[in-house]
Parts: sequence; C-alpha cells; structure tokens
Amino acid sequence: MVSGIERPLDLLNVSKGKEVLVYLKGDKQFAGTLLAFDIHINLVMDNVKEMQNGEVKKNLGLTFLRGDTIICISPASTALKK
Amino acid sequence: MVSGIERPLDLLNVSKGKEVLVYLKGDKQFAGTLLAFDIHINLVMDNVKEMQNGEVKKNLGLTFLRGDTIICISPASTALKK
Amino acid sequence: MVSGIERPLDLLNVSKGKEVLVYLKGDKQFAGTLLAFDIHINLVMDNVKEMQNGEVKKNLGLTFLRGDTIICISPASTALKK
Amino acid sequence: MVSGIERPLDLLNVSKGKEVLVYLKGDKQFAGTLLAFDIHINLVMDNVKEMQNGEVKKNLGLTFLRGDTIICISPASTALKK
Amino acid sequence: MVSGIERPLDLLNVSKGKEVLVYLKGDKQFAGTLLAFDIHINLVMDNVKEMQNGEVKKNLGLTFLRGDTIICISPASTALKK
Amino acid sequence: MVSGIERPLDLLNVSKGKEVLVYLKGDKQFAGTLLAFDIHINLVMDNVKEMQNGEVKKNLGLTFLRGDTIICISPASTALKK
Amino acid sequence: MVSGIERPLDLLNVSKGKEVLVYLKGDKQFAGTLLAFDIHINLVMDNVKEMQNGEVKKNLGLTFLRGDTIICISPASTALKK
Repeated sequence: MVSGIERPLDLLNVSKGKEVLVYLKGDKQFAGTLLAFDIHINLVMDNVKEMQNGEVKKNLGLTFLRGDTIICISPASTALKK
Repeated sequence: MVSGIERPLDLLNVSKGKEVLVYLKGDKQFAGTLLAFDIHINLVMDNVKEMQNGEVKKNLGLTFLRGDTIICISPASTALKK
Repeated sequence: MVSGIERPLDLLNVSKGKEVLVYLKGDKQFAGTLLAFDIHINLVMDNVKEMQNGEVKKNLGLTFLRGDTIICISPASTALKK
Repeated sequence: MVSGIERPLDLLNVSKGKEVLVYLKGDKQFAGTLLAFDIHINLVMDNVKEMQNGEVKKNLGLTFLRGDTIICISPASTALKK
Repeated sequence: MVSGIERPLDLLNVSKGKEVLVYLKGDKQFAGTLLAFDIHINLVMDNVKEMQNGEVKKNLGLTFLRGDTIICISPASTALKK
Repeated sequence: MVSGIERPLDLLNVSKGKEVLVYLKGDKQFAGTLLAFDIHINLVMDNVKEMQNGEVKKNLGLTFLRGDTIICISPASTALKK
Repeated sequence: MVSGIERPLDLLNVSKGKEVLVYLKGDKQFAGTLLAFDIHINLVMDNVKEMQNGEVKKNLGLTFLRGDTIICISPASTALKK
C-alpha cells in the first residue's frame, strides 16, 4: 500500500472513501470516512465520531474540517495491521 | 446526501439555509442557520446560539464568524440521522 | 433583514452605524457602534465598552480592532429580537 | 470626531500625535503618544508606559510595537469623554 | 553523512526510507519511516508510533503530518551514533 | 529625537548601534545592542542579556531573533530619560 | 566579529559550521553545529543536544528544525566570551 506515495497529498488521495483517524490541535480526535480534501488540507468526512480517550464523545455525521487545525491524518486500516 | 461532495467547500454550499453546528477554537460551539461563506471560511449564520455543554449560553442572532477561529462545521441533519 | 446577505462581508456592510457585539480571542467582548471595516476584518467602533460577564469593565470610546483577534461580530438588534 | 472615518486605518491617521491606549495579546497594555504606523499595524509610540491593572509598571519611552501582537488601539481622549 | 547538506530540505531528502523522530507542538512525538515530504514540511510516514515519555502510546501506521505542527525532524540513526 | 520618525521602521533604523530592550512573546526580555533588522523584524543584537524580573538570567552574546516572536523594541536611552 | 553583519541572515551565514544555541517556542533549547538554513529560518544542525535547565535531556544528532518554532539563534562562542 505504501507504493505510489510520492508526495504527502498522495496518501490523502488513496484514502478517499476509507476510514481515517484525524488528530486536531487542542487534543481532539475525529474518526470517519474521508470524502474530500484540498491543498489547505481542509477535509470533508462522513460518519464523523468525536473521540476522547478512545470513546465516542459525539456523533457529528458529515463534517467540514478546517485544515489549519489538523495535526495528522491516519488511515485506520494501516493502524490495525501493525 | 454525500453524493456531489468533490471538494470540501461543496459541503458548505449544500448546507446553505440549513442548521449547522460550528466548533470554534477555545472550546466554543455555535449552532445556527448557515447563510453565507467565503474561501477564508468566514461565515454568516442566523439564529446563532452559543452552546456550552449542550446548553444554550447566549442567543446571538445574525453573526459573522471569522474563518480562522473555526475547527469544523457540521450540518445538524446529518448528525441526527446517525 | 437576512435578505441580501450573499457573502459574509455583506453583514458587516449592513451593520455600519449599528450596535454590534464583538467576541475577541482571549475571552474579551467589546460592544459598540460599527463605523468601518476592511477585508482583514480590522474594525473601527465608537462608544466601545469592554464587557466581562455581562458588565461594563471599561469605556474605550473610539477604538481600532485588529482583525486577527476577532472571533465573531453580531449586530445587537438581531440578538434582541430572538 | 467620528466623521471622516471611512476605513479602519483612518482612525490611526487622525490619532497621530495623540495619546492612545493599546491592548496587546497576553494581557499587556501600553499607553503613549502615537507617532507612526504602517499597514501591518506596526506602531511607533513615544512616552510609552506599560500598564497593569491601571498602574504604570514600567516607562519604556520611544517604542516600536509589532502589529501582530496588537488587539486594539484607542485614542485616550475619546475614552475620557464617555 | 553530513556532507551534501547545503539546504535544510536536503536532510529530509536523504532521510527518505529511513527512521525519523518527529517532535510536534503540544509535546507529541512520532517515530516512523519517512516516505514523503513537500515544501510546507507536510510529511507522510509509515509504521508511525506515537511516543510519550519514551514509550509507545499508540500505533498509527501510515500517517500524513501537517507541516505547521512540526518542531523538528531527526533521523534516528544519527541519534544512536552519538 | 522623535523628529524623523515617519514610518515604524525608522525607529529601528536610528537605533542601530544603540542599546535596546526587546519584549518577546512568552514573557522573555532581551537587552543588547541592535546591529541589524529586516522587514520581517528579524533582528541581530550583540551583547544580549536575557532578563527576568529585572535581573540578567543569561549572557547570550551575538544573537539572531526571529521577528514573529517580538512584541516590542525600545531604545534604552529614551526610557532612562523619562 | 560583529563587522560584516548588515542583515540578520548574515549572522547565520557566518555561524555555519559553528556551535549555536537555539531557543524554541515552548521553552525548548537545542545546542549543536549549524549546517544549513533557508529564508524561512528552517535549520539543519548536527550533534544536536536537547537541553533543559542547562542539562542535556536527549541527544538528537542530525536534526531539521522548522523555522516558525524558533525564537533566537546564538553562536556559542560569542556567549562564552562575555
């Protein structure tokens, strides 16, 4: 799966339609399906769950995330395999 | 409803006139009707309620929100369906 | 009053000469009459009152506010009507 | 005095040579005479007094202030009149 | 190994495919294999481990890191040699 | 001494070779001789003393200061005269 | 040694290959040999030691530092001479 990642945005591109875990500044975590992104790393995710200490704090559904609050984005499938 | 979201701003476009929940930096939450947005994610919302711990803290009515304080924007209808 | 708000700055334009409530980063609130704004959301307001917990903390009179400290701007009349 | 304020920087222009109170991020307040400003809101003030809780904490004399630390700038004369 | 580092990004270039330790703002540390970077210092790393006080807190697998949260990036091999 | 200050950077220009006091974000203060500056307000100072509560905490000698951490810059001679 | 510093980046240029002490936002200090820098003040340093209260906390070896986390950069030799 790692093959084909030449530039950082390539990982976002191959993650469209898949589950991702997003860390935000201020210790928030959002889990959901990545639908869209742009060069500012603004995202739209679906079925978003706001997580806290591994538990679902709130269901947010479809959500626009502003790029400058994002620390990292990780496809869930790659975390499970490790 | 997810169909047609190619770019992040598409979600804001289809949410015009609808209820949205906005998370701001510094743990503020605003709920209201999205009227307008621009590429900086500056928003105008109507019937804005400042929320704290799920309760209405203050009614602000029509409100301009500066984009760089925004963490995420979520149409309320999609959260309710989940 | 909502009609005619196509872009976020339209709300600031129709609020000139009217009372507005401004939330600033760092939990400051300023109330006063909006006189002028620019695309950076720099404002000039008159009869500015610095508010804290709903009480007037200080009268500042004519004041220039730098846009990047602003969270939101709300015309007072629309809050009262709700 | 309000007449003639079409754009936010107009207030800084008419305040040159006059006493102003400046709020900075991090709860600092500087009082002094405004000598110069630029479009970044960088300022030069003279006879600057660093204020804390209404008292003079330090005399700084001539001072360059970097614009991005500034919250607001208020001509002292307009505050006194209210 | 130091030879050939003319510009800061040269170190990132020679570190591709190698283990790196990344310090993020807010006291987070990520260890993993550097796969890609761009001029904003956005990174993609594989086999990412979120570290806290020298221990693995969470396995994140493939991860996109946004450049503006990064403090420093250090190839692990050079730290071990010292 | 105030004459000739048309723009904020003029004060930095006439302060070259003189003692200045610099306030940094995060409550640091540096005192030293201003050698050079640029439009980002990056500075080079010599004989820099890191100050805390009016006492010298550390001698840093020649130092490059990044502009975006600077709050204000004040020529020491103008403070003493007041 | 001060001669020849016309612009702030000149000090970084003459410090290449020499020991420098770097203060970062969030009270971190890195000591090491400056190898490279760019106009964003991104640095590469070698033999980097993360310092805390004057003691070595961690050896990081070769390290890329992102410019926007840097407060100041000071050649060690100039501090010792004072």
